[in-house]
Amino acid sequence: MASTEGGKLWGGRFVGDTDPIMERFNASIAYDQRMSDADLRGSKAYVKALEKAKLVTTDEMNQILHGLDQISEEWSKCVFVIKPGDEDIHTANERRLKELIGAPAGKLHTGRSRNDQVVTDMRLWLRDAISTLTDNALQLMSTMVERAAAEIDVLCPGYTHMQRAQPIRWSHWILSHAVALSRDVDRLQEIRKRVNVLPLGSGAIAGTPFDIDRELLRKELEFDGISLNSLDATGQRDFVAEFLFWASLCLTHLSKMAEDLMLYSTKEFSFISLSDAYSTGSSLMPQKKNADSLELIRSKAGRVFGRCAGFMMTLKGLPSTYNKDLQEDKEAMFDCYDTVHAVLQVTTGVMSTLKIKQSVMEAALSPDMLATDLAYYLVRKGMPFREAHGISGKAVFVAESKNIALNQLTVEDLSAVSSLFESDVSSVWDYRSSVEQYRAPGGTAKSSVAAQVEHLRNWIKKQTQ
Amino acid sequence: MASTEGGKLWGGRFVGDTDPIMERFNASIAYDQRMSDADLRGSKAYVKALEKAKLVTTDEMNQILHGLDQISEEWSKCVFVIKPGDEDIHTANERRLKELIGAPAGKLHTGRSRNDQVVTDMRLWLRDAISTLTDNALQLMSTMVERAAAEIDVLCPGYTHMQRAQPIRWSHWILSHAVALSRDVDRLQEIRKRVNVLPLGSGAIAGTPFDIDRELLRKELEFDGISLNSLDATGQRDFVAEFLFWASLCLTHLSKMAEDLMLYSTKEFSFISLSDAYSTGSSLMPQKKNADSLELIRSKAGRVFGRCAGFMMTLKGLPSTYNKDLQEDKEAMFDCYDTVHAVLQVTTGVMSTLKIKQSVMEAALSPDMLATDLAYYLVRKGMPFREAHGISGKAVFVAESKNIALNQLTVEDLSAVSSLFESDVSSVWDYRSSVEQYRAPGGTAKSSVAAQVEHLRNWIKKQTQ
Amino acid sequence: MASTEGGKLWGGRFVGDTDPIMERFNASIAYDQRMSDADLRGSKAYVKALEKAKLVTTDEMNQILHGLDQISEEWSKCVFVIKPGDEDIHTANERRLKELIGAPAGKLHTGRSRNDQVVTDMRLWLRDAISTLTDNALQLMSTMVERAAAEIDVLCPGYTHMQRAQPIRWSHWILSHAVALSRDVDRLQEIRKRVNVLPLGSGAIAGTPFDIDRELLRKELEFDGISLNSLDATGQRDFVAEFLFWASLCLTHLSKMAEDLMLYSTKEFSFISLSDAYSTGSSLMPQKKNADSLELIRSKAGRVFGRCAGFMMTLKGLPSTYNKDLQEDKEAMFDCYDTVHAVLQVTTGVMSTLKIKQSVMEAALSPDMLATDLAYYLVRKGMPFREAHGISGKAVFVAESKNIALNQLTVEDLSAVSSLFESDVSSVWDYRSSVEQYRAPGGTAKSSVAAQVEHLRNWIKKQTQ
Amino acid sequence: MASTEGGKLWGGRFVGDTDPIMERFNASIAYDQRMSDADLRGSKAYVKALEKAKLVTTDEMNQILHGLDQISEEWSKCVFVIKPGDEDIHTANERRLKELIGAPAGKLHTGRSRNDQVVTDMRLWLRDAISTLTDNALQLMSTMVERAAAEIDVLCPGYTHMQRAQPIRWSHWILSHAVALSRDVDRLQEIRKRVNVLPLGSGAIAGTPFDIDRELLRKELEFDGISLNSLDATGQRDFVAEFLFWASLCLTHLSKMAEDLMLYSTKEFSFISLSDAYSTGSSLMPQKKNADSLELIRSKAGRVFGRCAGFMMTLKGLPSTYNKDLQEDKEAMFDCYDTVHAVLQVTTGVMSTLKIKQSVMEAALSPDMLATDLAYYLVRKGMPFREAHGISGKAVFVAESKNIALNQLTVEDLSAVSSLFESDVSSVWDYRSSVEQYRAPGGTAKSSVAAQVEHLRNWIKKQTQ
Repeated sequence: MASTEGGKLWGGRFVGDTDPIMERFNASIAYDQRMSDADLRGSKAYVKALEKAKLVTTDEMNQILHGLDQISEEWSKCVFVIKPGDEDIHTANERRLKELIGAPAGKLHTGRSRNDQVVTDMRLWLRDAISTLTDNALQLMSTMVERAAAEIDVLCPGYTHMQRAQPIRWSHWILSHAVALSRDVDRLQEIRKRVNVLPLGSGAIAGTPFDIDRELLRKELEFDGISLNSLDATGQRDFVAEFLFWASLCLTHLSKMAEDLMLYSTKEFSFISLSDAYSTGSSLMPQKKNADSLELIRSKAGRVFGRCAGFMMTLKGLPSTYNKDLQEDKEAMFDCYDTVHAVLQVTTGVMSTLKIKQSVMEAALSPDMLATDLAYYLVRKGMPFREAHGISGKAVFVAESKNIALNQLTVEDLSAVSSLFESDVSSVWDYRSSVEQYRAPGGTAKSSVAAQVEHLRNWIKKQTQ
Repeated sequence: MASTEGGKLWGGRFVGDTDPIMERFNASIAYDQRMSDADLRGSKAYVKALEKAKLVTTDEMNQILHGLDQISEEWSKCVFVIKPGDEDIHTANERRLKELIGAPAGKLHTGRSRNDQVVTDMRLWLRDAISTLTDNALQLMSTMVERAAAEIDVLCPGYTHMQRAQPIRWSHWILSHAVALSRDVDRLQEIRKRVNVLPLGSGAIAGTPFDIDRELLRKELEFDGISLNSLDATGQRDFVAEFLFWASLCLTHLSKMAEDLMLYSTKEFSFISLSDAYSTGSSLMPQKKNADSLELIRSKAGRVFGRCAGFMMTLKGLPSTYNKDLQEDKEAMFDCYDTVHAVLQVTTGVMSTLKIKQSVMEAALSPDMLATDLAYYLVRKGMPFREAHGISGKAVFVAESKNIALNQLTVEDLSAVSSLFESDVSSVWDYRSSVEQYRAPGGTAKSSVAAQVEHLRNWIKKQTQ
Repeated sequence: MASTEGGKLWGGRFVGDTDPIMERFNASIAYDQRMSDADLRGSKAYVKALEKAKLVTTDEMNQILHGLDQISEEWSKCVFVIKPGDEDIHTANERRLKELIGAPAGKLHTGRSRNDQVVTDMRLWLRDAISTLTDNALQLMSTMVERAAAEIDVLCPGYTHMQRAQPIRWSHWILSHAVALSRDVDRLQEIRKRVNVLPLGSGAIAGTPFDIDRELLRKELEFDGISLNSLDATGQRDFVAEFLFWASLCLTHLSKMAEDLMLYSTKEFSFISLSDAYSTGSSLMPQKKNADSLELIRSKAGRVFGRCAGFMMTLKGLPSTYNKDLQEDKEAMFDCYDTVHAVLQVTTGVMSTLKIKQSVMEAALSPDMLATDLAYYLVRKGMPFREAHGISGKAVFVAESKNIALNQLTVEDLSAVSSLFESDVSSVWDYRSSVEQYRAPGGTAKSSVAAQVEHLRNWIKKQTQ
Repeated sequence: MASTEGGKLWGGRFVGDTDPIMERFNASIAYDQRMSDADLRGSKAYVKALEKAKLVTTDEMNQILHGLDQISEEWSKCVFVIKPGDEDIHTANERRLKELIGAPAGKLHTGRSRNDQVVTDMRLWLRDAISTLTDNALQLMSTMVERAAAEIDVLCPGYTHMQRAQPIRWSHWILSHAVALSRDVDRLQEIRKRVNVLPLGSGAIAGTPFDIDRELLRKELEFDGISLNSLDATGQRDFVAEFLFWASLCLTHLSKMAEDLMLYSTKEFSFISLSDAYSTGSSLMPQKKNADSLELIRSKAGRVFGRCAGFMMTLKGLPSTYNKDLQEDKEAMFDCYDTVHAVLQVTTGVMSTLKIKQSVMEAALSPDMLATDLAYYLVRKGMPFREAHGISGKAVFVAESKNIALNQLTVEDLSAVSSLFESDVSSVWDYRSSVEQYRAPGGTAKSSVAAQVEHLRNWIKKQTQ
């Protein structure tokens, strides 16, 4: 029986050969070998449970543990040789174990199925990946918060609808993106909780028929809890879907920040200048300095969301329990991890090296951005805001008609629009006083921005404890 | 100035007219009127903060509060009249307030922007929606858990890859879907936390320049916290994106259950029979009884994910702070709420009325589903599992070659494959004994399934306290 | 039998009642009434085929035709009354027909199923919708092409990576977007071909067992062809999926153009100014003039793609032939049509009314944008381009170091970088001469842009013949 | 200047170093080396145009052509060595050319930009890929059509809503999927037309300033046409988006077929049996034979649509012309090609090797599936269909109440429901006669199915000419 000789796990049954294209199509070893370490850790815990259940002797357990350690070393030294027939990392490791220690290797899979094994491996892998991403995100946040602290005195235009709206602090802008990242970290911790649940001991579908101590497995593998239902445990991939969407929303935040920075680095805005380390040139145009790093950051939200959409579509079409379609989970998970991992680091590099042009930013403030303050001047004199808004709008219109700046309107010009305007109106035209009005929590006054810095510093500290 | 007369909020500035198609394109009143109540509640809180800040007198506050109550009554009696120029619910309510109480109405918007107003309204609305959906989900879970408790003695085939795998309890299958829903409820509570944060007091972008007591607003509106950064508060829609994805994952779970049920209700499986209340017929074929309810449940995951994908794509393309593109948030949110709301209720109806055909389910158990048990028989006699699996596979092959059922192989047939087979092998062929082996947590033994029922009952109770 | 009395199409079989939520969930009349006219046209053709097959008498046919005309009039006068039980437009029209003409109405559905009826109606409706959208797109293209012709002498910076790259004609920019639209029109015509295929006569799944002359139906309804296979005809929705994706790609083009225009309308670029008819103001900031029309155009690509993604996900999870899940097709189709229909018209309005600021555009041209020309100067003197590119880059570097413009480098400065630079290098610094170099097809020279205008004018003319 | 020494294309300008993570993030050589051949072909054509424009001498051209041929050989022998700094295939090939032939290599990029070069390469590559996929699809169709021809006499239940609906021919089912594939091939040819347009000569954005004969390039590279506008040519990726969606819709078709086949291969249906070559076993359950090939086919529609969604989202957020974000185009395109290429071949394998169980299929036909025929019996006796449908439904109800099959109702039973029933009603209960009624085009009668076979055979022949 040819296929048995090839050593396929299900041996003994098939008489036909498989189509080579089908073989490649079916195999996952090309990418799931990234979980080699998780797979070995899972097997080491499992053999201990087997020993406790007297399904292997202590001696067999030790042989298996030793063999698994040897395989681990082979992987870490990059000398593990994948052979034809190693369709996935689980098969490969078990095949190698048998080569190393012989017969006892055949006992390792007792009561275990690839269905619970693969999902255990994925959860172990993703738990580590989440730790790394959390660190990456906190490092980026920290860079941003410290930059915000250092540059708190810089003013710049705040935009809505991509139009100049009101003067704000540059640090206020930085922190708005850091706050978004803090939600990403929050969410990632919530996902970690749900990732960190042990499925091992669920078998293919019905559970395990042996005295496998799942609590022992949980402790060995440092999971927080144990899956409740074996059908669900082996057939659900919520934790993957959640992670893919997490990656999508996180990168949407960074795409948004990158978009702002790209605007700010156009010649027309000229608010910032990227480090050469994060720019590239043109193969045709010698003068070009392109913010490629920002464009790549911006683009990756699409890539990652595509992985989420693709996996959701695959999931959506399935009945319950394990179906081979679920094999799509791993490439999506790995690609999203790699992408977010790189994006967070590149963004940290960009944010720690870009230079701002304070004078250009401040020169971009214009009196019409204080039209709201002009309305508030009237409100403070008792005029209902709605009316004051209309009056201020008329003042803007008069200034535009005269082709002069709003602050160049004389008191006469203004009092023609409303008799409440008096000479003290001139106090309105000061950008620093304007921003200092916004002292309520979350606002752009210095005290308020400093409070945001303090809040986030503490928050970051708490995360890293 | 024609447009001022039409009473547009920004009055006083435009001299041109708008294109009627553009007007319709721009207006959101057709759908955002669903937030009328949230808008009025937000305004009632806001006027109290204005009074505390001495921006309106106590008398004006009372007039405004009274007027807002009147408007509320108009909405609840469905007599509120939308007029041309009411482009959104905020404009409509304020326009009406002015009609009812005159001048003081013009003070309500002091220091507020539609940017913080709209997102406050959305958060209030969504908070309520989340409560309703939580109730709907718990009711469905409860139905499922009680059904599982009642039918715990029914066995049926467990499937993987849509192929018969091992005998399981029907209740085990039910609970596998209930467990997925419990994660949905968990996630929804996490989202609620992030929804329940007050943005009011963030203005258009820079914050509020008046002594608006945001803590007072928070208490009045029963928010858990206050937004940290005004740019982020007005420009982010994470809570909407999270909700849309939540809806997608939740409905993917129900789609998966519906798919199972559709299989089970085919003539070929005939495991269940849907109540007529959840079936429909054919306009052509008189004998047809279609499980339309299940098909609709299955289809909605696509619809809802489409809303998520659409909104994510819109979000992804934006720079920070408020951009009009964000107007896409509301229809997506409403549609996902309505859809999940209906799906959860219909699913509850389906699950509480469908009838199972126990005898058909149990007749579908076949001896080959015990091939794993046959291997375990050998494992218990000391054979390594990997070898036992191969031997059992050979037994399956022999039975297939002889065209008989696996349990019809004689001891002689079996011992030709392995000498470990003895006459006690006949004990393997009992489905009830087979399932009772799976006593580990999460397994399909009666005690294990009963423990799952207990766990979920307690969990549900805790949620509803 | 209660449900028969309610007149449900499948009558006679169900004894239970349906859940009111299920009823609403199941009903499509709220949206599919938009196909009332298509449904009536389909029925009018069908009754003619019935008469030819002698399944109705000529007299019955005439009664039915007359009744259908009456219903058509009721719809067009908005007096058609939808009754409880009218779950979809097909049921509603047939119910009304029975009220109007009695018994013969019961013959109309002979050999027809809702499965082939609904898809016939959709194809008729979409065919008309495609005609309208084609007209809308051509009108927009025409506006753009004529504007390009009129403003051919205006230069502006061409950007890549959002950075100034090379001088181009403004018309060249306009035409780049018109060319994208021409591909959209091409694709729409291809889809039309596949929409315009008659499914009627396919029954529920197996075809029609009567002598229904499908060729007669085709001619009556002006379809180009007849569906090949009845299972495919009733169960496939490729034409909807294609249309949804078409809408997505088309709006991605307009989103791209809107994004450019939004950049150009920032204060910082100030290249264009939108008509007030396509701008709105701020409820807080009196000076704001927001390009809301552009933001809405930009946002809609997301919405429409969401519909496509949602429907694809629903489709993907299905087995073949008609499943109720397909009911998701209609809202998606209608919403995409409405959205594209509005976006194309609003974009036409925007493009025909925006004002350009030629002097600002031309002032934004800067000598460094001619660095490529400087390299070409050297190439023309025999230096390999790769080397010339390096030399020109060094010149840019020298100018930046000296903080002067590239064209302010003296011949001495330049010849220090390469001895090939001579006094004729001054001829490089002319923007108009620069663009005139790009005379190859597709380039930005006047002759080349004029040829593009001519080409597109002819192309549009051909489409409208 | 360190970076020049590294040989980056834009040399001469940067003084800083790049971040290694940024380098990797930026580089595309890992995947775009698949276009090495297309890149070399493009360069060979381009140097001929340069020679015609007298930008290289004939001798230089020959040196370059010779060098490019050498590189081509290196690639085909897998001996091309990628060096650090080779960020993409274009850089790598040009770097190698310089090593091989020295100075003249520096002239190859004259007037060309990576912007037009990369898109030329992609179009050449995709054109070939489309040819291969067309062949794959036609081979699958051919397999299906010939199988349909061979098995035309096999009847099976036709399903709608996953419920038995009417008897059909098995071949009719096969052809319904072949017809869907024929639309895929049609669409692919339309996309090919739009892929096969030459962008070379568009430069970075403005076109080419030299006498580059684009018509010569077109002929050399066998394109059908020349791009109309250089901004559009370098910045649009419609052809990629179209291809990704094409792949999604095509695989949705195959997913649908796979879903049907999975149903048919369940134990409960048992209509078909997959070849062992396309099945796999279970690591736990020895008896399992899983239709993994079908599950993989089913899953890939999700993967591929994810690529489409991801790329659309990336595209959607962009302004016009080339932005680095477009680099996401290639991995998406390659992955979709590879996936569809494998899926089509595996599906061909599955369809040419699966075995049907005719007796099981035909045993699954049941008298209630003729309820429509029973109604038609009444229609033929003059009863309006709507009434006949009700009567037939009542007959079904009576049979169900009596717990007998529909055809076991006596004439008395039936005439109690309608007096039109007479003894000739027995003729209704013949499945072969039933299907033979459906003779109209597209129906399930033998003549009609045979006509479909003929039509598709001719259609396939026409495609391959």
